[in-house]
Parts: sequence; C-alpha cells; structure tokens
Amino acid sequence: MRVAEPLHLRLLRLLRDNGAVSRAELADRLEIPRPRLLAEVSRLVDLGYVAEAGMAASRGGRRSTLVELNPGLRFAAVDLGASSVDVEVVNGRLEPVAAYAEAADIRSGPKAILQRVNELLHKAKADGAYERLDAVGVGVPGPVSFRDGVPVSPPIMPGWDRFPVRELLTREHGCPAVVDNDVNIMAIGERHGGVAHSVDDFLFVKVGTGIGCGIHLSGEVYRGIDGCAGDIGHIQVDAHGPMCSCGNIGCLEALFSGTALAKDATVAARNGTSPALAERLATRGAVTALDVAEGAVEGDVVCIQLIRDGGRRLGGVLAGLVSFANPSMIVIGGGLAQLGHILLAEIRSVVYRRSLPLATGNLPVVLSELGPRAGVAGAAVLASDVAFGEAT
Amino acid sequence: MRVAEPLHLRLLRLLRDNGAVSRAELADRLEIPRPRLLAEVSRLVDLGYVAEAGMAASRGGRRSTLVELNPGLRFAAVDLGASSVDVEVVNGRLEPVAAYAEAADIRSGPKAILQRVNELLHKAKADGAYERLDAVGVGVPGPVSFRDGVPVSPPIMPGWDRFPVRELLTREHGCPAVVDNDVNIMAIGERHGGVAHSVDDFLFVKVGTGIGCGIHLSGEVYRGIDGCAGDIGHIQVDAHGPMCSCGNIGCLEALFSGTALAKDATVAARNGTSPALAERLATRGAVTALDVAEGAVEGDVVCIQLIRDGGRRLGGVLAGLVSFANPSMIVIGGGLAQLGHILLAEIRSVVYRRSLPLATGNLPVVLSELGPRAGVAGAAVLASDVAFGEAT
Repeated sequence: MRVAEPLHLRLLRLLRDNGAVSRAELADRLEIPRPRLLAEVSRLVDLGYVAEAGMAASRGGRRSTLVELNPGLRFAAVDLGASSVDVEVVNGRLEPVAAYAEAADIRSGPKAILQRVNELLHKAKADGAYERLDAVGVGVPGPVSFRDGVPVSPPIMPGWDRFPVRELLTREHGCPAVVDNDVNIMAIGERHGGVAHSVDDFLFVKVGTGIGCGIHLSGEVYRGIDGCAGDIGHIQVDAHGPMCSCGNIGCLEALFSGTALAKDATVAARNGTSPALAERLATRGAVTALDVAEGAVEGDVVCIQLIRDGGRRLGGVLAGLVSFANPSMIVIGGGLAQLGHILLAEIRSVVYRRSLPLATGNLPVVLSELGPRAGVAGAAVLASDVAFGEAT
Repeated sequence: MRVAEPLHLRLLRLLRDNGAVSRAELADRLEIPRPRLLAEVSRLVDLGYVAEAGMAASRGGRRSTLVELNPGLRFAAVDLGASSVDVEVVNGRLEPVAAYAEAADIRSGPKAILQRVNELLHKAKADGAYERLDAVGVGVPGPVSFRDGVPVSPPIMPGWDRFPVRELLTREHGCPAVVDNDVNIMAIGERHGGVAHSVDDFLFVKVGTGIGCGIHLSGEVYRGIDGCAGDIGHIQVDAHGPMCSCGNIGCLEALFSGTALAKDATVAARNGTSPALAERLATRGAVTALDVAEGAVEGDVVCIQLIRDGGRRLGGVLAGLVSFANPSMIVIGGGLAQLGHILLAEIRSVVYRRSLPLATGNLPVVLSELGPRAGVAGAAVLASDVAFGEAT
C-alpha cells in the first residue's frame, strides 16, 4: 500500500532543489493552506533545517519573505569503488564544499577503508568544510540490504558481508547514515542532476571494472527482494564464451567490461594486429580499456572493433531488458562510458533493432552527464533525504 | 510521489477479501478511530456498496454488528485470448455466478469480438446472474494503454490498435470498465487468489501460443512506459535460430511456445523419432503442444526432450530476469504449464545455476494454481478495484 510522503520531506526537498523560495510560493507548490505552511516552516526553522533569506520580489499585496535551507547544513557523500574512494562534503543544496578522491582497494576490508573515509572527513572538518555533519550517504560496489545498512554477500568485497557500515558511520559522526549499492547511487545522482533529470522510469547502466544496472521505476530506486536487482553483468551472452569470475560460462562481464577489454587489448597489442595498442604496451608495459578508447579516437581499426563487439553484446542484453521493463530512458555511465559514441552507436543499433518497436519509439539511449561524479552526487541526495526524513 | 490509498478503497477491499466483518474489527484493521469508521460505513451503505449482515459474536462489552459487501454487487470479468473468449459474472466477493467459455479468433476484430462478449453478458442477465453490472474488467492479448483503456499496436490483434474498448463497454453496460494486458490480469488473479497470494514482487510467466510476463513490483502491476513491459517472448535466445513472426531471428517464442512446440512435434511425428507423436498424427491429422505433454507422461523420450529443450531456453531468459529484477517468486502459467514438472524442473535447474546465489536463495519457481481461470480471476479483481475506487 502506498504511503503519502510527509510534508516536511516535500518542503525540504523543494528548498534543496530550488534554493530560496517565498512562503507564498511554497504554499502554492506544495498545495497546502497558507497557515499550515507557515506553521511547518516555523517548526523547521526552530529545528535548524530552514533559515530566513530576506524578502521576495513583490507579487502585489504584502511581500512574502524568502526561506532557504539552513546554510550550515552539511552532508557527506561517499562513493566506494572496487579501486577508489571518493568523498565529498556538500551543503544543503548539494553543492560540494570539499572533495577528495584517491585510489584504494576495496579488498583491504571494511575497517581499513572506512577508517580512511573517516580520516578524509575529519580532514575536511579541520579544513573548515563543516562543524558537524547532518547525514552521511555511502555507495558500495556490491549488493546491499538497504533496510539494514549492510552489504550482503558482495562478491568482490571480502570481509564486508553484513559489516555494520551504517552503524559505524552513525557512531563516528553522530548523524544518520545510509548505505546503497554504487550503481543505485549513480542512478540517483543522474536523476537528480544529470541527463535523467526528473525521468521516473529509466535504467542506469554502469560499465566499469564490472557491469551493473541501477533501476528507477515509478520515480523510485527498485532494489529487489534481496537488494541485488540490476546484477546484469552475469547474464549469459554466449553459451560457448569464456569462464567468468563467478564460475559460470559466457557472462556479459566476462566478454565486455574494463577487465575483459584490457585482456582483449593485451592480446591485440601482442599479436601485432593493433599498432596503437602495441605502441602503448611497449611504452607503458600494460594496456587498459582507456588505451582502447584512445586508440579508437586515433582510428585504430582493432580498437574500434573491440568497442563495437562489446557494444553489440551489451546491446543484446539491454534489448532484452527493454522488452521486459519498457523504460523511458537508458543512461550509460561508468569508466567505459569514455568509449563514447562508438559504443553508444552500437548499443543503440542493437536495442532499436531487437526490441519491440512500441518500446523503442521514444527511447533515448544516452551517455551519463555527471560522469565520474554520478556516484557522490547520488550519495549526497540519499544523505539529504535521510536527514530530511528525520525532521519530525 | 506516492499517494496514500483512500479509506473507502481499503475498506471495500477488506470486505471483498474477508467477507462479513464487524465494525469493531474494521476499525482495528484499518487503524482508524471508531467514529470515522462508522461514518464511512454508513456512507457506503447509503451508496449501496455495503450492507448489514447481522450481529458479530461477542468480544465482551457491546456486541458489534457485521457488515459485508452488498450481495447484489456484480462484476463482469472478460479474458480475451488469441483464440478464446472467457466471460464470468462474479459477486462482490468475486465468486462466479455465471461463466462462459468459447473459441473465438481475436483477428475477427474488436467489433465482432466485443459484440460476442456483450451477447454473453446479456445472456447472463437474462439467466438472472445480475440486474446491473457495477464494473467490467477485460484482458486482451497485447500491449494496452492502461490509462486510456485501449490496445496499443498489438501485434496479433489486427484492427484493435487504439480501439476504444473501455469506452464501448462503459456505454453498453452503464458502468466503469478497465482494460489490461492478458498476462497482467493473470498475474493479478494469481496474486489475489492463487500461489502468489500476497506476494509483492513476482513474475508471472505465461507460456501459451506466445510467451509473456506479468510483472508485480512493490505490490503493484508494473506496466512500463508504453504498457508493453513483460514482452519477453521476443528476447533473443539463439542468434542462429529460426526466424520469428516479429521478423527477428531466434526469439524465445520462435523456439519455445505453443506454436513452436506444435511445429517441432509435427517434425518428430513425421520423421518417426517419436512413436507417441506419430500415432497421434495418424489418428488426428495434426499434433499440438498438448500431445507433447501427453507423450511425455507416457514416457516418450522425444516428447520429454522437447519439453526439456524448451524449459532450458525459457530458463535462460528467466535467469537473466532474476539477475535483473531479483523477484521473490516466479509463477509459470498459461496453456503450456500443462507440460508440468518436467518443464518446471528444467527451468529451475537453469535459473538456480545461472543467477546470482543471493537472488535464488529463497526463490520459488512454481506452477500457477488458478490455471486457465487466472485471467478472469484477475479481470474480476481489476473490475472490483475500479468500482470501489468510484465510491466517493
């Protein structure tokens, strides 16, 4: 059964996404009587969520005063990748006031990684980014029990299974915390401030070291019964393909991902079919997916072909998901989105050819706008939502 | 944004699904104060939705009176298949009071088919099944704009595109009508009174002439942006497979469906590999999917193999959808559910092997309980919901 969203949450989100707004406009946009709005604003001012922001321009009659989110609100947004830590501190409008990014191996385990996150946040505090945090949002590269705030059987995160991530951060920073899957937070970020702005039903496909999918349905993240919805990297695309790290044969990820592409690129560099890759291998001692992207831009035929092969495979899986979910947009993000328009063209070609015409008639397949910032942007949105939700 | 369900809808559904209930228990179960409940019941009695039903057993203190849905409430439930029309008239508790089933070709077009539906309903009226209908629910074998009450580009329904089905039925019977996809209504039926009772997130897979999927997420039917979500029959399972009626190569439906199975069975009957099928072909002049089911029960190896091959292909698609949607149950229905446990065992084997262990840990894959009645059962639920929704 659906439950209506409480007034304070709608009001605070409106200020977050619009900046200073007059009381008169707030009452109009929230469709509630003026007295109720005034009482609610006054309550939220007392609680420290909302502050006065001067007078609005006249609309004729008595001038209305502007209100905005308390300028001292601060949220921490954390995006943990397989090999990276991104931390931002943002204000109530989700504008960054401090940002840190560094390499880190998620396999170091939760204690080491979360200690580093805390160090970065304490450094931000020492640098004057905040006095106290109002909420922390974290994305992790694996399935999450959103309700419990813990990773659940995450395949590439040894030691993290059921580790109390939310509890630890809450204790450390004295504020609510929220934990979600990294692809889900990227999708949330892209919907809040990116190409999927205000789109209710879309798929965010992250193509990076692995492949995953964030699912937004009816305006909300769909996480599935066990928190592992969107695990599309292990859909089989070739029954006679290579073995995947999961133990199955021919998974999408085993054929197209950062890891798979680096492997294919190394073969092409060694056997001499790709001059661009051979040159990079000779200079740097190794080639990565990024080298394939660079080689393609230079017109290297093998690099272009590798990207097209990958796009065809990913496109085949997405065509099936379009038939199943009939979304209104597909966003391609993650590190391999740098493969750019060659990848996109191939994905589009397969999806538009293979799915039901009714489902693809108005279906944009586009690249992420937020790029590497999608994750922290979404973590910030989640953190603000959880903080706002507690304004009761 | 989520909107809370109105009290009258919750109250009427509770009476529909529970029968006579005391006012005291209604107030408890709906979690509202007694005076508000009494006022609402009284309003619904005046409107003719609710009726008195005697005294409840004592709970100590003053005895509460029972109320129930008006015994005169009648809904029409219509399930239009590719080659069949099923019509039921049910009471407020969705118990059938009249039922008709006959062969009909959906390609005869909307005027002929809907005229036949109306004839059957008028016959039911003449037979005393109802005085007036309170709502009509209809399922059609193709994509539907649920909001507009019209089929949209339905591939196997020539002449039905955007035909005003809802409007025509409303005019004919002087009551609200609701139109949905046939697989969606089967899923709704199975959730209301079948194996998926009260399950919020499940997939209902119909395997019949074609293959489709009803998607229930967070307790509601998910229809997609264009009303064509769940069109899994055209997901590619073999890039080198046969051509499908949709023009693409190797769709699931082209390899496993009533049509495909009849084709494979005919080949096996003719080339003599299957004695069971050869015998039926000789006797009846043709073989169908049902003959394969019968042959398998008799132990015919080719029949068993045909079912296992089909189950493997369907299972491969479902494994991908489990990875994507992480549902809590999969229900197999439609005519080919008669292939029974051989089919089920093969589907389970593939899904459990191929999907993420976290997603399959507690995932039942089961046969429909309602069988051929799932469609009308769901159409009746939809009809009652739309009638109850108008009790304002």
